[in-house]
Amino acid sequence: MAARQRNIAVSEFFLKNRHLLGFDSPHKAILTTVKEAVDNALDACEEASILPDICVEIMHRGDDRYLVAVEDNGPGIVDEQIARIFGKLLYGSKFHQLRQSRGQQGMGISAAGMYGQLTTGRPMRILSRIESEKRASEMLISIDTSKNRPDIHSKRKVAWRRRHGTRVEVELEGHYTRGQHSVEMYLKQTAIANPHVTLRCVDPGGKTRVFRRSTDALPPLPRPIKPHPHGVELGRLIQMLHDTPSRTLKRFLEDDFSRVGTTTARRIIERTSGRLSERSNPRRIAHARATQLHRAIRHTRVSAPRTDCIVPIGEKRLLEGLRKELDADFFLVITRPPSVYGGNPFQVEIGIAWGRSGGLALAVDAKGRIRRKHKKAKGAQHAEHADQAAHLLRFANRVPLLYQQSACAITKAVAQTNWRAYGLKQPKGALPIAPMVIFAHVASVWVPFTSESKEAVAPLPEISRELVLALQEAGRQLAAHIRRDNRLEHEYEKRAYIESYLPHVGLALQDILELSDRERNRTVARLDIILHRSRKS
Amino acid sequence: MAARQRNIAVSEFFLKNRHLLGFDSPHKAILTTVKEAVDNALDACEEASILPDICVEIMHRGDDRYLVAVEDNGPGIVDEQIARIFGKLLYGSKFHQLRQSRGQQGMGISAAGMYGQLTTGRPMRILSRIESEKRASEMLISIDTSKNRPDIHSKRKVAWRRRHGTRVEVELEGHYTRGQHSVEMYLKQTAIANPHVTLRCVDPGGKTRVFRRSTDALPPLPRPIKPHPHGVELGRLIQMLHDTPSRTLKRFLEDDFSRVGTTTARRIIERTSGRLSERSNPRRIAHARATQLHRAIRHTRVSAPRTDCIVPIGEKRLLEGLRKELDADFFLVITRPPSVYGGNPFQVEIGIAWGRSGGLALAVDAKGRIRRKHKKAKGAQHAEHADQAAHLLRFANRVPLLYQQSACAITKAVAQTNWRAYGLKQPKGALPIAPMVIFAHVASVWVPFTSESKEAVAPLPEISRELVLALQEAGRQLAAHIRRDNRLEHEYEKRAYIESYLPHVGLALQDILELSDRERNRTVARLDIILHRSRKS
Repeated sequence: MAARQRNIAVSEFFLKNRHLLGFDSPHKAILTTVKEAVDNALDACEEASILPDICVEIMHRGDDRYLVAVEDNGPGIVDEQIARIFGKLLYGSKFHQLRQSRGQQGMGISAAGMYGQLTTGRPMRILSRIESEKRASEMLISIDTSKNRPDIHSKRKVAWRRRHGTRVEVELEGHYTRGQHSVEMYLKQTAIANPHVTLRCVDPGGKTRVFRRSTDALPPLPRPIKPHPHGVELGRLIQMLHDTPSRTLKRFLEDDFSRVGTTTARRIIERTSGRLSERSNPRRIAHARATQLHRAIRHTRVSAPRTDCIVPIGEKRLLEGLRKELDADFFLVITRPPSVYGGNPFQVEIGIAWGRSGGLALAVDAKGRIRRKHKKAKGAQHAEHADQAAHLLRFANRVPLLYQQSACAITKAVAQTNWRAYGLKQPKGALPIAPMVIFAHVASVWVPFTSESKEAVAPLPEISRELVLALQEAGRQLAAHIRRDNRLEHEYEKRAYIESYLPHVGLALQDILELSDRERNRTVARLDIILHRSRKS
Repeated sequence: MAARQRNIAVSEFFLKNRHLLGFDSPHKAILTTVKEAVDNALDACEEASILPDICVEIMHRGDDRYLVAVEDNGPGIVDEQIARIFGKLLYGSKFHQLRQSRGQQGMGISAAGMYGQLTTGRPMRILSRIESEKRASEMLISIDTSKNRPDIHSKRKVAWRRRHGTRVEVELEGHYTRGQHSVEMYLKQTAIANPHVTLRCVDPGGKTRVFRRSTDALPPLPRPIKPHPHGVELGRLIQMLHDTPSRTLKRFLEDDFSRVGTTTARRIIERTSGRLSERSNPRRIAHARATQLHRAIRHTRVSAPRTDCIVPIGEKRLLEGLRKELDADFFLVITRPPSVYGGNPFQVEIGIAWGRSGGLALAVDAKGRIRRKHKKAKGAQHAEHADQAAHLLRFANRVPLLYQQSACAITKAVAQTNWRAYGLKQPKGALPIAPMVIFAHVASVWVPFTSESKEAVAPLPEISRELVLALQEAGRQLAAHIRRDNRLEHEYEKRAYIESYLPHVGLALQDILELSDRERNRTVARLDIILHRSRKS
């Protein structure tokens, strides 16, 4: 029996468990590939302070075969790294850093290549150029799945019109679909959460769709942080004590943690009741002492973590994004203050777009008159109906989440919020029934997803709590709007009634007061103004 | 930027993503640890044809600390393997074999150790003895998470009362809970699906509970199979062609696949229209030829895979298991024939236990009389109420699944089945409202779980279809029983009515026919028998 025990390469594991990476059906395969490549492209551009221009092409290659190509104007990748970035699972720059990014695992794009290789036997093609090089590097790469390492089929320098950027091509078996889970929907939602990005998409029919940026301002670059002392478990503390280059405990506390200065370090050490001193050698601290140190840290006040490691979309930009892509009567955005789970800062943003698209709306004009205005129907808007469940758009670190809605902390938080308190219909434990789109964004240095495919946020208590608080605030503001809207409609009906009778009132007055026609008209006009004014809310 | 790119050890990845392995809360931590250890213990015993005797102890160590110990009477582990089995993720004997087993990833128990180490800083303690050794080996092991390899703290030979077996001890931070997601519930459900196992459990209060085996017959040992040709993707075929020791294509097809004999191999090769011959060297088959071969395989009839690689519980054993642990009026079991998804054989079993426990039941006695009988209430039965949703017990490869119910293919199949057609109430898209327990088991050589924590079966179309078919058959049988039951109740009411009037009828007859008291009594008795008989269904 012992002889059969052996190593399992992480690539073998995920090849067999490819559904965990989002490759469980031909429908998802194309979308997941696009998503992983676009995520990487956006991260690369932003890190190099380049306004992202991304082009996605999907070409049909007969039968169930498609070629997915994603090209960016990012900084490009140096030759030595190309093979490992695309031909090895669990390799990357984002895992070991505590700061917000779309990718975090170093798996996605290699997994897409692995899936292409499995279904079509074709390697990935990578084209990448950094600005200092005259030509681009072209590589054909597959993964040696039994060893989780890249297998380079060919490598050469080629001319490329781009000065810098990367193009990834994966040939794979898939189904190209439209609708809720389509590439187009993913790009549209990406545009909402990333108003600084221009996305072009060429579908298998050759049709091009462009989502243009609405701002030239890049979001601020999130800054990496060190672990917060309150988020560090005992075992991790012991590991850190062992690994630190610091020679003294005080130094260790100050250098290896965020938010620990001299005062806080001293306070922590004092709390160990003399069992440890500022000059204790971290590497020589035994288990029992480390347990005391851990307890001392827990009981010492430390400022909340720095939050420039996360960059929410922001109220202004989010409103712009929602207005640009959705057609609705009323928009609102709620941003919660940053919070922390297990030492990881995170922040929740909620947006609501209310009202049927393409329908009628009432508005108070500059003169205080209520006007019916016909709304123009936009392109692929989320047409909502009053008797359907609210449409939920979920995002994590600015990336739209299209699958596994029911497993997601966001969905659970929306269903758990009591929308009846805000005047909406809501079946027990379900999404509210209302003509609205709910946008929800969780930004974090480490988003806890329910699987490696990053399709749903795990419902950790701290995250769920923040989501519910934000949704409740959104609900209150929405309820105020709905009340105002109802009052407006009520008023409109009353005024329509007055206006239709006003000419008759005019004639009656003319009769009684013997007015001229001009006097009568002036009186009616003044009455109209007075009646409107008095009812102005 | 390039400088920051680096390897991510699989243990680092899962330490950060420990919620994927079932360690997302202190409540789950204890249960997951027990589950992983018990799964391994059962697999080891069965593989060595030993009737499993497992003992689970959970000891409170102050604050949130617990020591979880699981001891089995399995064959034990040879010294050289202990460290790697318990101190390394992705190491094991089950991943590379196509046959049913509880463990399949080579991760669970090492992950439990890693979690213990993270939260308490304590290594795992392993005690293991193989029969040929005089003493047991005791090792203290932790994982070097940055390298995914075992770190052996100590190693020695000790005396042990057991002749063979293994004991695993993990000290961890957790919450011990009772109820739906408790260790006790997990063991109880394990007993249902494994009637050949005896489980002992000592809770932190020192209370012992024993689930005794109801049969001494071990289930047959599943036999490993080779991949079925219809389940092999093009990329995998290319890899297999490259890796095979066979020198000819015919040999390769016969030796590397299941269900391919000389005739089938020849038919496949003929279908390539002369482009490949029986003597083609597998290693020299280029991509285009491999694509043709792949197509030829797809279009050639091959017998369905052998199914002795999976071992369902079986109708008799499952009924025994359900009767032993659940209190109900009516039991039924459905076993679907084996089926295949992506080349992997699997099989679905459904059991239903119907009726309120501890309530009243009607039954027809030997004489054809309907009798009310009081049911005895059992220990920790699943007391069901008529106005509550059916209670669902989910299993994969005989292991109870306690979490992520809503994400599971089993739950989705139950909700998708139209139970109204079988006379039950059912809210739209939800579980039926009925006093019943639904037991569902998916057995496969490779269960596609929704995450590494193996808490829910991924809803792949083939698996969902088999589940629905089994549930529909169960529904039909249940409906027939319910109709019979309703008829019985109806009859009972009628008969009660007749019986209360019969003495009056007797008196009237006596009057009319001038019968003696003896004659009257005899007539009434005969009338009673005739009326009962005529209504016997």
